[in-house]
Amino acid sequence: MHSLNYDRKELWDWISRTTLISVRTDTPHDAERNQNFTFCNSSRALPEPVNKFRPRTPRTHGAVRPPHSAPGAVAAEMEPSSGGGGSTFQPLVVLELASTAPEEAVGWLLSRLRERQQNGGAELLRLLYGAEESGLFKEYSDGSMRGFTCANKHKFKGFTGSGDGFLSMAECQYIIKHQLEALRAKDETHVPGYSQAKLYPGKSIIRRLQSKGILVQMFPLHDKEELKRLSFSWYQRVRLSLQPLDAIRHYFGEGQALYFGFLEYFTIALLPMAVLGMPYYLFDWENYDKYVLFAVFNLVWCTVLLEVWKRYSAALAYRWGTLSRKKAFEEPRPGFHGVLGLNPVTGREEPVFPSVNRQLRIYLVSLPFVLLCLYLSLYVMMIYFQLEGWALSVHDEGPTLWTEVLTYIPSVVYAVVIEAMNLAYRYAAEFLTEWENHRRESSYQNHLVLKVLVFNFFNCFASLFYIAFVMQDMLLLRQSLATLLITSQILNQLMEAFLPYWLQRRRNKKMIRKVLKRRAIEEKELPLAEQVRLEADMSTYLGTFDDYLELFLLFGYVSLFSCIYPLAAVLVVLNNITEVYSDAFKMCKLFKRPFADPAGNIGVWQLAFETISVIAVVTNCALIGLSPQVKVYFPESATQLILWTVTAEHLLLGFKFILAFLIPDVPKHIRVKLARIEFESLEALKKKKILEASKPDAE
Amino acid sequence: MHSLNYDRKELWDWISRTTLISVRTDTPHDAERNQNFTFCNSSRALPEPVNKFRPRTPRTHGAVRPPHSAPGAVAAEMEPSSGGGGSTFQPLVVLELASTAPEEAVGWLLSRLRERQQNGGAELLRLLYGAEESGLFKEYSDGSMRGFTCANKHKFKGFTGSGDGFLSMAECQYIIKHQLEALRAKDETHVPGYSQAKLYPGKSIIRRLQSKGILVQMFPLHDKEELKRLSFSWYQRVRLSLQPLDAIRHYFGEGQALYFGFLEYFTIALLPMAVLGMPYYLFDWENYDKYVLFAVFNLVWCTVLLEVWKRYSAALAYRWGTLSRKKAFEEPRPGFHGVLGLNPVTGREEPVFPSVNRQLRIYLVSLPFVLLCLYLSLYVMMIYFQLEGWALSVHDEGPTLWTEVLTYIPSVVYAVVIEAMNLAYRYAAEFLTEWENHRRESSYQNHLVLKVLVFNFFNCFASLFYIAFVMQDMLLLRQSLATLLITSQILNQLMEAFLPYWLQRRRNKKMIRKVLKRRAIEEKELPLAEQVRLEADMSTYLGTFDDYLELFLLFGYVSLFSCIYPLAAVLVVLNNITEVYSDAFKMCKLFKRPFADPAGNIGVWQLAFETISVIAVVTNCALIGLSPQVKVYFPESATQLILWTVTAEHLLLGFKFILAFLIPDVPKHIRVKLARIEFESLEALKKKKILEASKPDAE
Repeated sequence: MHSLNYDRKELWDWISRTTLISVRTDTPHDAERNQNFTFCNSSRALPEPVNKFRPRTPRTHGAVRPPHSAPGAVAAEMEPSSGGGGSTFQPLVVLELASTAPEEAVGWLLSRLRERQQNGGAELLRLLYGAEESGLFKEYSDGSMRGFTCANKHKFKGFTGSGDGFLSMAECQYIIKHQLEALRAKDETHVPGYSQAKLYPGKSIIRRLQSKGILVQMFPLHDKEELKRLSFSWYQRVRLSLQPLDAIRHYFGEGQALYFGFLEYFTIALLPMAVLGMPYYLFDWENYDKYVLFAVFNLVWCTVLLEVWKRYSAALAYRWGTLSRKKAFEEPRPGFHGVLGLNPVTGREEPVFPSVNRQLRIYLVSLPFVLLCLYLSLYVMMIYFQLEGWALSVHDEGPTLWTEVLTYIPSVVYAVVIEAMNLAYRYAAEFLTEWENHRRESSYQNHLVLKVLVFNFFNCFASLFYIAFVMQDMLLLRQSLATLLITSQILNQLMEAFLPYWLQRRRNKKMIRKVLKRRAIEEKELPLAEQVRLEADMSTYLGTFDDYLELFLLFGYVSLFSCIYPLAAVLVVLNNITEVYSDAFKMCKLFKRPFADPAGNIGVWQLAFETISVIAVVTNCALIGLSPQVKVYFPESATQLILWTVTAEHLLLGFKFILAFLIPDVPKHIRVKLARIEFESLEALKKKKILEASKPDAE
Repeated sequence: MHSLNYDRKELWDWISRTTLISVRTDTPHDAERNQNFTFCNSSRALPEPVNKFRPRTPRTHGAVRPPHSAPGAVAAEMEPSSGGGGSTFQPLVVLELASTAPEEAVGWLLSRLRERQQNGGAELLRLLYGAEESGLFKEYSDGSMRGFTCANKHKFKGFTGSGDGFLSMAECQYIIKHQLEALRAKDETHVPGYSQAKLYPGKSIIRRLQSKGILVQMFPLHDKEELKRLSFSWYQRVRLSLQPLDAIRHYFGEGQALYFGFLEYFTIALLPMAVLGMPYYLFDWENYDKYVLFAVFNLVWCTVLLEVWKRYSAALAYRWGTLSRKKAFEEPRPGFHGVLGLNPVTGREEPVFPSVNRQLRIYLVSLPFVLLCLYLSLYVMMIYFQLEGWALSVHDEGPTLWTEVLTYIPSVVYAVVIEAMNLAYRYAAEFLTEWENHRRESSYQNHLVLKVLVFNFFNCFASLFYIAFVMQDMLLLRQSLATLLITSQILNQLMEAFLPYWLQRRRNKKMIRKVLKRRAIEEKELPLAEQVRLEADMSTYLGTFDDYLELFLLFGYVSLFSCIYPLAAVLVVLNNITEVYSDAFKMCKLFKRPFADPAGNIGVWQLAFETISVIAVVTNCALIGLSPQVKVYFPESATQLILWTVTAEHLLLGFKFILAFLIPDVPKHIRVKLARIEFESLEALKKKKILEASKPDAE
């Protein structure tokens, strides 16, 4: 799209270049009859498969012939067919092609999409086979979760008749994405019409189209009805019940649902802290030294919290069928580049980049850069302390209301600077990690997360550590903690929800005004095109990274220092509650629907939270050692106090590891179910082999 | 066997009750023709399969008819067949039945052994199918290690013609054991002739026979020729080369070979320590405070050592085909008992024991018992220190040669007492773990290892910790370490090799004298019976537990305190070298051949050694903090010194964990190979599904 200026011609042109893919869950038997790739109607009211693309085009279609010659080939296929009610067409996935894409390229892509899978085509129609191939887990008739296979599809719960309604819309969209990405070049050397978009046998076509900008974007469409129901039960009324996690998973996929599950779990787990913290805060504000009990509680809480989450998360993932789902072999990520060579694992031709080069880049460039940033962060922190000292001295010289306000300014400014530095560093980290040229997406993600986490942790907590353990000023620590926590919460909520909301609203208003104008002209036509147009313009949801990062930092504030400022837990609980609503709103209203991500756990974040909880043992023990309460017991010897503190810390760390070791990560009833499935498959294999072995006897 | 008194009658009787099982690696095709279970000749000189049992019985067999009526049924089948040279019969596995076993039971067992597998029999002949079933990995034609399957047996290296010589003797023995243990009861309610030996469908027959004492033992036989070659290249000549690990694995299996590999690796890894330690010891004996450098070296060494071992071990296990071998579903261990119920995983009937009861036994009985033993050990330690103090005071009052000797006596006595306590505790731990009634052997082993490790560690090192950190007497620490190390080494070598050797020799001499006497009478007959008889009388090798435990304690002495006594590494190296020879001798000469154990790593010991290396960071940092060298830098403030030490320790621990995280556990070239196999199997599955999917089209 090169223009947002809607006149009828351009709109039609735009639709012709936005390939709408919709697939009906046909039975494989039906599917096999339709040899050609077809775009079918997913409406349950009109089950008969309809060949060819049939978007809800203006009924006065004679008037909207494609104006250019280039997209003619596509447009021709988009003529509405005579049979079936066009108004019920429900697209699933939208592929938006660049407006400069020449006819050849578009035609070639469509023909490749239509081919049978044996010839390398995506064969979208056979969704059930796609479900099997992408390793989807569904509930079996005995209540266990098993990998779906077409061979015994009738043994899965909810599979009736032709299997209509067996797969949810999100699952269909995931399968289509999986199939599209598996669409590989055969002997084409380049995309027809784009001599610079090189291809080689086995290269994913969609990825090349994306990297060359021919495919602008590919996104699944929202289901207005379902979304309405979901958002009503999720955030549109104030309630005391839990989030509808299963419905969230059903609509957005497992990765999203796990995030919201974790957010909710974290909030509930914080409640005891908040309840305990309130009286501490209300009655002991000045006795800031009475925090030993609170610190001990903190320690136990952190360890148990994360271990229990692991079990809860395993239970959720089992219910959603992602716990024992096997990861497919990972393809090179879109940004990966290198000399064309042979992959030692697959034996296929693909770009190869020596891992020595990558290691060199990591250790000689990225690592020094991160260290430099950490140093810079320290430097900024020292400036903050100087400013703070200066403000305090001004206030001490002649205290007025203005100097009182002045003493708070450095903290607020520092909090804002921290957020700004985090943001800037984030871009640098993304650039560097991209440049490290990781082959797999997971490796890229891990390196990015590590870089960002280390810096954010350091940046946010360095000043607190400095105040706690170098300056040993508990009053200042409490004040800084409060300022940092409140400022960062306010900033986050602003940046995360209100800003995008405001931008989106402005954009929508503009669009709606135009649409209304056009509707007036065209007599309320084109609702599908409008929906697609609106959703294509929505921002893309970039994954749960930032959401988890925010939780990570909040967890840090609470577990590392909250014994100093017991109100922290209360603030975090309040923040989390608004976070649930704003995140839910964001997911439903502000962003394009994301493709479902079949995650089995929260991944590297579990490790990150556990690391924090280990560091929390150290800081809490140190804070206890510094507390006047404990110092009373060692009136003469500071050495004795330190030795006792260190010993206690080591014992606690040891106890923590033993506890983590003793609590099984997966609840017993799920372990039994998993073991049963494994046992059954082993037995089946054995039986099969015995049968095979006995066959020659029969002959 | 109720008697060792050999006359011809009794010997014959004994043989008739010692079922000798020997299997030839027939091709499956041959095997399928022989529907009945057969005992075949493994001699390559006489390849034709010979039905029925044919031990090398006295040629004057007419004279040695079975004297009792009971074993008649078995004896009848043991009549030497007329064809083939009986002298080349080479048995693989010996089942020794109790001499009281009634005819019915023996006959039933033999008939069950002969049945086809479909009917529940063990079908020993089809070793290749057994190899596939037990998940054996062999080298594929492309050099990778893959699970053996009969379907593409010809693609495996070394498979020629009928597959003769494809499986090693140890592999055959392992497969036979696997098959014997998989022999299950059908609808028998008890072993025929033994109404108290209850059976139920699915119960392992061999295990019930073992637990009721009907099957006295089951062991594989040595191969005299191979053993001769192995022992020559292994320990019968002094050499500078490494151990023949592949040959050890070939003969004894992977578990043994990994132990010897670890022993060798550990010895070589200690060499730099020993080389560095010598000058420290020779030139700085009195300057015992110059150990900071040594301690730092220690720390780095410990971490790197274990990480590199993990990679080396993975490489070994990959080469031997045990790295990616899947564990089969574990059967209840022989000692497990409970009410007959349904196993939730298999759905089979088997004894069930509520895990709550087990947890109660563990936490209410075993844990308090262990704690009590630890307290006892502390008590003994305090007595030792009192004795030591008394001896020193006697020596100080009137120093003579005798009082000089007297000062050493408490240490030596304490070292002996420690060994005795370890031994006594070991029996108690075995009893308790047995009583905890673990269902799986692996769980039993883990609990036993944990109990024994904690106590041995505490018992051996408590006094050293007390001296180092409570008394802070580095001179005494050095002396105690030397005494403990040397005494325990001498005791260990005595208990482990010389005592069994001496006992064995006495027994063998007696036997050989008898055999010679009989030979004179029988004109040098019965060499096979003699071999079986001799080996049946040898001690049973009880696994690598004690060997690893010894290494664990030595590793503890070296890594925890060796900076105080640099000669420790030298002593351990010397000990390890003799250990290689004595262990090798023990394995080859003193023990029955053990069944191969297809281990992929050193299991729980890796964790144990890593725990020690974490504790080593703590002790070494503390020792550095206590060193006069470091104290010089903090002349005024002990607090500062401690804080710096603690900070350094935390950084080192953090660094250690990061290092362990960064170094991949499996070398890259092996990861690539494993990924390739997984990728290929995924692709094959996909291809198969596409083929299946396209079939209906063809119809």
